[in-house]
Amino acid sequence: MAWTLSEIVARLGGELHGEDRLIARLAPLDEAGADEIAFVTGTKHADALRASAAGAVIVKADLLDIAARPAIVCADPYVYFARLAGLMCPPPAARAAGAHPSAAVAADAQVAASAEIREFVSIGAGAVIGERVLLMAGAVVEAGAVIGDDCVLHPRVVVHHGCVVGARCILHAGAVIGADGFGNAWAGDHWEKIPQIGRAVLGDDVEIGANTTIDRGALADTVIERGVRLDNLIHIAHNCRVGAHTAMAACVGVAGSTSIGANCMIGGAAMISGHLKIGDRVHISGGTLVAKNLDKPGQYTAVYPLATHKEWLGNAAHVRQLGKLAARVKQLEARLAAANATDPHSTKEPQ
Amino acid sequence: MAWTLSEIVARLGGELHGEDRLIARLAPLDEAGADEIAFVTGTKHADALRASAAGAVIVKADLLDIAARPAIVCADPYVYFARLAGLMCPPPAARAAGAHPSAAVAADAQVAASAEIREFVSIGAGAVIGERVLLMAGAVVEAGAVIGDDCVLHPRVVVHHGCVVGARCILHAGAVIGADGFGNAWAGDHWEKIPQIGRAVLGDDVEIGANTTIDRGALADTVIERGVRLDNLIHIAHNCRVGAHTAMAACVGVAGSTSIGANCMIGGAAMISGHLKIGDRVHISGGTLVAKNLDKPGQYTAVYPLATHKEWLGNAAHVRQLGKLAARVKQLEARLAAANATDPHSTKEPQ
Amino acid sequence: MAWTLSEIVARLGGELHGEDRLIARLAPLDEAGADEIAFVTGTKHADALRASAAGAVIVKADLLDIAARPAIVCADPYVYFARLAGLMCPPPAARAAGAHPSAAVAADAQVAASAEIREFVSIGAGAVIGERVLLMAGAVVEAGAVIGDDCVLHPRVVVHHGCVVGARCILHAGAVIGADGFGNAWAGDHWEKIPQIGRAVLGDDVEIGANTTIDRGALADTVIERGVRLDNLIHIAHNCRVGAHTAMAACVGVAGSTSIGANCMIGGAAMISGHLKIGDRVHISGGTLVAKNLDKPGQYTAVYPLATHKEWLGNAAHVRQLGKLAARVKQLEARLAAANATDPHSTKEPQ
Repeated sequence: MAWTLSEIVARLGGELHGEDRLIARLAPLDEAGADEIAFVTGTKHADALRASAAGAVIVKADLLDIAARPAIVCADPYVYFARLAGLMCPPPAARAAGAHPSAAVAADAQVAASAEIREFVSIGAGAVIGERVLLMAGAVVEAGAVIGDDCVLHPRVVVHHGCVVGARCILHAGAVIGADGFGNAWAGDHWEKIPQIGRAVLGDDVEIGANTTIDRGALADTVIERGVRLDNLIHIAHNCRVGAHTAMAACVGVAGSTSIGANCMIGGAAMISGHLKIGDRVHISGGTLVAKNLDKPGQYTAVYPLATHKEWLGNAAHVRQLGKLAARVKQLEARLAAANATDPHSTKEPQ
Repeated sequence: MAWTLSEIVARLGGELHGEDRLIARLAPLDEAGADEIAFVTGTKHADALRASAAGAVIVKADLLDIAARPAIVCADPYVYFARLAGLMCPPPAARAAGAHPSAAVAADAQVAASAEIREFVSIGAGAVIGERVLLMAGAVVEAGAVIGDDCVLHPRVVVHHGCVVGARCILHAGAVIGADGFGNAWAGDHWEKIPQIGRAVLGDDVEIGANTTIDRGALADTVIERGVRLDNLIHIAHNCRVGAHTAMAACVGVAGSTSIGANCMIGGAAMISGHLKIGDRVHISGGTLVAKNLDKPGQYTAVYPLATHKEWLGNAAHVRQLGKLAARVKQLEARLAAANATDPHSTKEPQ
Repeated sequence: MAWTLSEIVARLGGELHGEDRLIARLAPLDEAGADEIAFVTGTKHADALRASAAGAVIVKADLLDIAARPAIVCADPYVYFARLAGLMCPPPAARAAGAHPSAAVAADAQVAASAEIREFVSIGAGAVIGERVLLMAGAVVEAGAVIGDDCVLHPRVVVHHGCVVGARCILHAGAVIGADGFGNAWAGDHWEKIPQIGRAVLGDDVEIGANTTIDRGALADTVIERGVRLDNLIHIAHNCRVGAHTAMAACVGVAGSTSIGANCMIGGAAMISGHLKIGDRVHISGGTLVAKNLDKPGQYTAVYPLATHKEWLGNAAHVRQLGKLAARVKQLEARLAAANATDPHSTKEPQ
């Protein structure tokens, strides 16, 4: 579906500079052609902008002079592009209200008439499915779970019994919301399972990646606050709290009862130990293991530096001797200090 | 469903001290109200116990004096709590014996009459489903697989052909038991797939987390012994053996042909290389990569210490020069020793 | 199904030495019995070969003398074994062409008559399913997706709308191809979702492990080239390119827009940051985080060395002081140099 630049500006705002033009698609700046529109986030891309064959561009005012083609000027081209992509390529949403004949919907489930329930979907007793919800193939909403208005559950998502998903959430394929937390009590010669009787509760506007798992709480709830974005293959353990608008890249793990503040950014494959408090606006670098509370905003890192395997062999062995090396340096300092104290030829310390 | 304290003691043992009382729910000590019961694991929680509004508590004898309310006294309050949670909030189990009309059950599968087979479940030719098994929505049990008595397979679990699951196992949503191991032979210009013809075999009382994968063996079997507890998003590769009652937190990976002993504890996101032998009662810290055999019980760690990103920058570069730094220290020691040997003013080494 | 050695050689090549014999199964060298065949990759297994009770073996010519039993001689016993396993234990493939009555196939999907579509499979509008494709229970192929000839999709695989899977690919249970990439633009007080309108495109002969996720591109495509092998629980982010015949062990993560060359080997739980270029024939050790471009072939490592927890405590604290330690060593060197320069007793540097 093609749009003219003037239609786009009428819908999304911004100022159109140059002639109106029909736009067929969005494309990256270096690949876009005459009927495509690209975006430019800043002046560091000025050369790429000059070289681009894009028929139109989304820019800030400071790049208008060198755009040299029809342009939409706005305050934040990246956000504008996000909204334009949503306009031109709308993501999945309920369209054909009603349930596919193969769906298994409990008699007492409350399913909004505007919801679309696709093939092989299961909805348990007493579950509540909000307005315009889309449940894709094979999604499972267990008994008593609540799915807010305008949610999209991709194929094979599972929302376990009694869990709550806020409005406008997107749960990607294979995500599991509210599986049992990992609760085991050692009973002398075996593990005794601790039934997990809390819930997993997601706020509004949360997006959860493919095959990510968010466990239900042991007694109290696991809580994902509004606007949180979790990528794929993330694990959130029981009784965690993830603050509003925090974003986590893929493969992150958060152990039980840890609380993470609002507006945090957690890099891919970071791992956060249990029973910790991480404050607001904390950034954790990818691959970092966090094992203590972090009160202050800022970036934290714990990554072993990369080298060729041969260089690594030459250095890593010394890591295991680092305490001894430090002790040897201390002793050298003491010896030199002692020598200086008794030696008439001793010099002042160099600066 | 509410229980009186005397009913609880009649079922689970322990001694009731104080008046009998009706208990509606279990709750954390700091959140519990007058109709709720909480547990206290030790004297370090004495202040929280005094401050709690819980209507009743589960304690050891040494905390009875300050409990100051109806209390159940027992040897291990945490285990007692686990059993009480199972009593008051029984986890999913087969109730409505028989198969949902949508289930696809092979004609020659052996399904116990007491098993509950829910919607969209597939059971392949010759599969065996034990007494009181619960197969939830969309679970797949392929041809020839065996599911022991009283197992619960949550939605969308897959047990591949010929694999064996012991009695009383719990497999959480999305777990995959017996997918092909990662077997590839380099054939000069491409990988040749090595068909994986072993099985995955799980002992009794095993619990497997959501979206965890346990691959089948290449020739011999992959074996998970009785009582093992695996959290979510764990990978166990082909031909591994995990010893009885070993527990692994989420996001752990174990590479092929590694054998792990009994009663081990593997922290979250730990990674264990292939073809290793890990003995009994080994504890691996979260985030640790293990690349050698570990014969002795004890805790092992390999974690880069966390710092602010700025501090990290100031230190990490030196890790890559650590071999050189150690050589410089050695040279300093030699110089000082040589200087001392020839210098009449030399002093004794400081202690 | 048993085969004689001469039948095997007639099918797969190699030279039969010794008497013909009926072979019932393949087995590991140390477990094989009289009716089983094992393979030996090299002379380091000579003692195991002598000790083995295998009825027949697959060896290179240099081990024929000590084989002392019927043997198939070939250039690469491991590859030969791979092919023999495929012959004796053929992996799942389409056999009963046609669709199970429960399958939900869109009216305008193009499904080859030779394809086998099992129970609870969904095929969306305009999807194309090639010859002899096997879609197992609960697999989902969304609208417009293309599945090449001879592919096998294990239970519950999801291929999202418009994505392309080449010929002869194997996608293991729970894999998700083409979920939305993790695209979010910060809009001042919340994340704005960036619709992901690229595709995920897999070449021929690709194998994808259980519960692995390969995201669709943001604008351009995510590309997995021919012959790639990915193990379980791997995450490939949007707009990545993985070169031909590259293999990744389980739990690897690759962040967005990173390009990885051909014939690379990525160890388990390695993590590769976004927007990087990794060249051909790069080997990354397990557990290594890569945060810079790697142009040259070779092995790269970034792993903190393992120790007992007590030893670790004694060393790790010094990692955080490593910059200071290096400065202290530098100062010692300067002091000693200054002392030597002014001290008439100074000696030459030791070698």
